[in-house]
Amino acid sequence: MVQAAVGFAQKNRARFVDELKSLLRIPSVSTLPEHAGDVRRAAEFVAAELRRIGMENVRLIETETKEHPDGHPLVYADWLHAAPAADGKPKPTVLCYGHYDVQPPDPLDEWKSPPFEPEERDGNLYARGAVDDKGQMWMHVKALESLMSAGGGKLPVNVRVIVEGEEEVGGEGIAQFVREHGDQLKADVALVSDTEMFAPELPTLCVGLRGMIYTEIEARGARTDLHSGMYGGAAPNPFVALAQIIAKLKDADGKILIPGFYDKVQKPTDAELKAWKALPFDEEHYRETEVGSSSLTGEPGYSVLERTWARPTLDVHGMPGGFTGAGAKTVIPARALAKASMRLVPDMTPAEAFAQFKAYVESICPKGIVLDVRLIHSGDPIVVSTDNAFIRAATEAMREVFGKETVFVRGGGSIPIVGDFERELKVPTVMMGFGLPDDNLHAPNEKFHLANFHRGIESIVRFFGAVGA
Amino acid sequence: MVQAAVGFAQKNRARFVDELKSLLRIPSVSTLPEHAGDVRRAAEFVAAELRRIGMENVRLIETETKEHPDGHPLVYADWLHAAPAADGKPKPTVLCYGHYDVQPPDPLDEWKSPPFEPEERDGNLYARGAVDDKGQMWMHVKALESLMSAGGGKLPVNVRVIVEGEEEVGGEGIAQFVREHGDQLKADVALVSDTEMFAPELPTLCVGLRGMIYTEIEARGARTDLHSGMYGGAAPNPFVALAQIIAKLKDADGKILIPGFYDKVQKPTDAELKAWKALPFDEEHYRETEVGSSSLTGEPGYSVLERTWARPTLDVHGMPGGFTGAGAKTVIPARALAKASMRLVPDMTPAEAFAQFKAYVESICPKGIVLDVRLIHSGDPIVVSTDNAFIRAATEAMREVFGKETVFVRGGGSIPIVGDFERELKVPTVMMGFGLPDDNLHAPNEKFHLANFHRGIESIVRFFGAVGA
Repeated sequence: MVQAAVGFAQKNRARFVDELKSLLRIPSVSTLPEHAGDVRRAAEFVAAELRRIGMENVRLIETETKEHPDGHPLVYADWLHAAPAADGKPKPTVLCYGHYDVQPPDPLDEWKSPPFEPEERDGNLYARGAVDDKGQMWMHVKALESLMSAGGGKLPVNVRVIVEGEEEVGGEGIAQFVREHGDQLKADVALVSDTEMFAPELPTLCVGLRGMIYTEIEARGARTDLHSGMYGGAAPNPFVALAQIIAKLKDADGKILIPGFYDKVQKPTDAELKAWKALPFDEEHYRETEVGSSSLTGEPGYSVLERTWARPTLDVHGMPGGFTGAGAKTVIPARALAKASMRLVPDMTPAEAFAQFKAYVESICPKGIVLDVRLIHSGDPIVVSTDNAFIRAATEAMREVFGKETVFVRGGGSIPIVGDFERELKVPTVMMGFGLPDDNLHAPNEKFHLANFHRGIESIVRFFGAVGA
Repeated sequence: MVQAAVGFAQKNRARFVDELKSLLRIPSVSTLPEHAGDVRRAAEFVAAELRRIGMENVRLIETETKEHPDGHPLVYADWLHAAPAADGKPKPTVLCYGHYDVQPPDPLDEWKSPPFEPEERDGNLYARGAVDDKGQMWMHVKALESLMSAGGGKLPVNVRVIVEGEEEVGGEGIAQFVREHGDQLKADVALVSDTEMFAPELPTLCVGLRGMIYTEIEARGARTDLHSGMYGGAAPNPFVALAQIIAKLKDADGKILIPGFYDKVQKPTDAELKAWKALPFDEEHYRETEVGSSSLTGEPGYSVLERTWARPTLDVHGMPGGFTGAGAKTVIPARALAKASMRLVPDMTPAEAFAQFKAYVESICPKGIVLDVRLIHSGDPIVVSTDNAFIRAATEAMREVFGKETVFVRGGGSIPIVGDFERELKVPTVMMGFGLPDDNLHAPNEKFHLANFHRGIESIVRFFGAVGA
C-alpha cells in the first residue's frame, strides 16, 4: 500500500504543485485585519480539499480569544477507521498539525516576483508561505490523499488533522482549543512539518525549539507632538528614551543584561553539543551566504549553533511612531513604540521572562517618560525525547527516501503548539520538516525547493506506513 | 495714511480671514512628493493676490537644487515707487519674507478638525499652516493691501516680497536664489513674521535663532530581512545598533556627548540673561500646559529658556524600517533608519557640527553593521543686532497696537533665511511674529489666535509707516 501511495504521489506531482499554487495565491496574512477575509478563504480551501480526499468530520472551528476576539478558524478533519493489527491492538492515531496563515510580505519592493503570485524558478516555488507553512502543510494533505487512493479509501493509521490560522500571531486560538477540548484531539503522536533540514540532502528531525515572548514598549513623553526647535532641550523624546532602554538590554557583545534572565538556562547535553560539532556547518559560509552581514554578532564563547538554538536572545523588530516619511519633519513625537522579542530556551518560562523584562525596563525608564510594557504573545521552549517508536519510524521513513542517516538538531524559532501538545495532550511530537536554510522564511522571496516538497510527501507516506506497521 | 490703512484693515477683517481660509485649504505639504501640485497651487494663490492688490512684477521663480531638483517655486513681487523724503532722500526698501508651504499633518487622528478644513473655535483658527506660516505671511499681504488702498495705490516705503515653498524642507531653493540673484532682492531691511510672542498680550521681537542640522543614520546588517527565531543570536540587528548609537549621543541628563560639539558655543550676554530672567515664565506652568510630560529634560544647570534658546540640542524624530504594523512580525530587518536633528547656537556652524556628528557616529558603529550618515538639510544659528532704526520702528509700531513695551527674546527653532539675508544681502532682519506658545506648530491642532492675526496686520501697517516716516 505504501509503495502504491508513493507511486500515486509521483504520478500526481504536477497537480499537487498546481493546487499548492492556488492556496499560495490567497494572501492569508493573519496579523493584518484587512486580510481577515483572505485568511478565512484559505481555511475553506484546506477544508474543501480534506473533504474531497476522503477525510471525515471536516469542519471549521471558530476561535475567540482575548488577544483575537475575531479569531481565525481552525480546520479539523479525521479518519479513525484503521483496521487493528493481527493481535487485535488498535492502530495508533497521528495528529497532523500545520498552519495556513502567513507572515506579512513587506518589504514588497524586495520581492523578485509578487509574494502572492507563486512563480517557479530554478526548481523552487517562490511565494509568501511557500515553505512556512502552506507548502509543508500541503505535504500532509497530499500524503493522506496518496494513501487514501492506494488503500481504496483507507489509511494505515488513524489520523486527525488540525490546521490553524494564527500561528504567525501567537496561536492563542489553537492553544485555547487544545486546553479546553483536548479530548477532540486525542492521539498517540503529533506530526509537525514546520521546520527545515540542516543542509540540502540531509534528513533532519528537530528535537528542540526556543520559546519566545513578543513585547511592545510604548514610551510617552509630551502630551502632543512638539516642534523640536521650540522644545528641544526641555521636552522628553520618546525615541531617545527607547534607545537608552534598548541599549541597556544587551551589552555590545550581545549578552542580555536583564537581571536573572539566564538563571534557568539549561546547557545542552555533552552528547548533543558533540553531535552539533559534527554537523556540516561552516561559519564563514553561513555569514556570507545566509546572513550577508560584515560580521556575525552574539554572545562570545558560544558557537553559532549554540547561540541560535540553545541561548536566549533579544531582537527589536520595528520602532513605530514619529515621522517616517521621506525628507524632514522636526517633531518631538508624543509617543513611540519598540517592538521587541526575546527567544527563550529550556527551562525558562515566558511568564517569568516577561516579568523580569518588564521590571527591568521600568526600572531604567528615563526621566519625563511614562512606559507601558505589553506582552503581545509568548510560547514555551521545548526539548522533545528522541527515544520513542515514532522518532524511529520517522528516521526510517527518511532513510528510505534520502538514503542517509537522519541528524537531530534544534530550531531557533518557536512552534508554541509543540509545547501545548506535550503539556495538554501528553503526546510527543515528531518535527519532520523539509525547508532549507536559504528559504527566506519571514523575508522577501520566500521559497520552497520543489524536490523537497515531493520528498516530503513520500517521507510522510512512509512515516504513516511505518507507524501503522 | 497709516490711520486710514488701519481703518481699512479693521473694516475688512472678515474678508481677510476668509481669504486665509482659502489658502489654508490647499495642502501645500512641501516634504511629500504627492502634494507637489498643491504646493504650486498655493504659490499661484499668493501670486494672484499680490497682483490683485497692486504689487508689480509679480512672478513665480522656479527653483532647482541638488536636494530638490523639482523645487517648489518662489513668489516674487515688488513696488518701488515710494516718493522720496522732503530732503530728497529715497525711502528705504523693506523685503517681506514668508513661506506658503506647511509641515505634514500627521498624526491625523489627533486633529479635532481636519488639518486642511480650517475651523474657527474660541477665537482661534485651526488648520495646518494657520500660524506657520500662511497666516503670518498673509498679514504682510493684507498690510500691503490696506496701505495701497489708503494711499491710492501707493505705499509709504519701497517693498519687495519673496515667499518660498520649501521652508519646511530646508529652504535650499531660496538660499540658492539669494546667493545667485541677491541683486534682485536689494533692500535695507527684511521683515520676517514666522516667530511667536513670548506670552499673550506681550509684543515680542525675536533677535536670535538656533541653527540646525537634520540627518539620517542608515544602519544595514544582514543582506535581507531574517527570521529572528532562526538568526537571533547571530545576525546583527540594525535597530539595536541604532539604539546603541543614539544612547551614546546624549547622556541621561541630556548633555550631548559628541566630541567638540560645545567648543564654539557662545554664552548669551549678561544683559540678555538678566532680561530672560525678568520674562514672565513659570517653569511648572510650561511643563504642565505646553509640554504636558511628567517632568522636563535637558542639561542641568541651565534654565529652560537657556536650554531651548542658547544651548545645542539633539532629537530623534522617527526610526523607519522593520515591522511597524499592528501585531507581531518576528523579523530582524536588513536595515533601519534614525532621523536625528541637532539645533545649533552661535558660533557653531552646520558643516563642523555635521562633521563632528558623522565622525563620532561612525566611530561607535556596532559590530556587523554598516552605516550611512547623511545630512538632509541645515541652517546657521544667528543673533541679530537690536541697535538700529528698523528695530526701533518695530517696537514703536507694536507699542501703539499693544500699549506695552516690546521684549527681546530668542527662538529655539531655525529660520535659515535670516542668516542668508544677513550674510548674502547684508541686511538686518526684523523678526516680528504674532504666534502664541500654545499654537501647536508642527503638531496636530495648529492654530492662529485671530486677534493676533488682526493686531499683526495693524502692527505691520504701522511698521511700514514708521520706516517710511
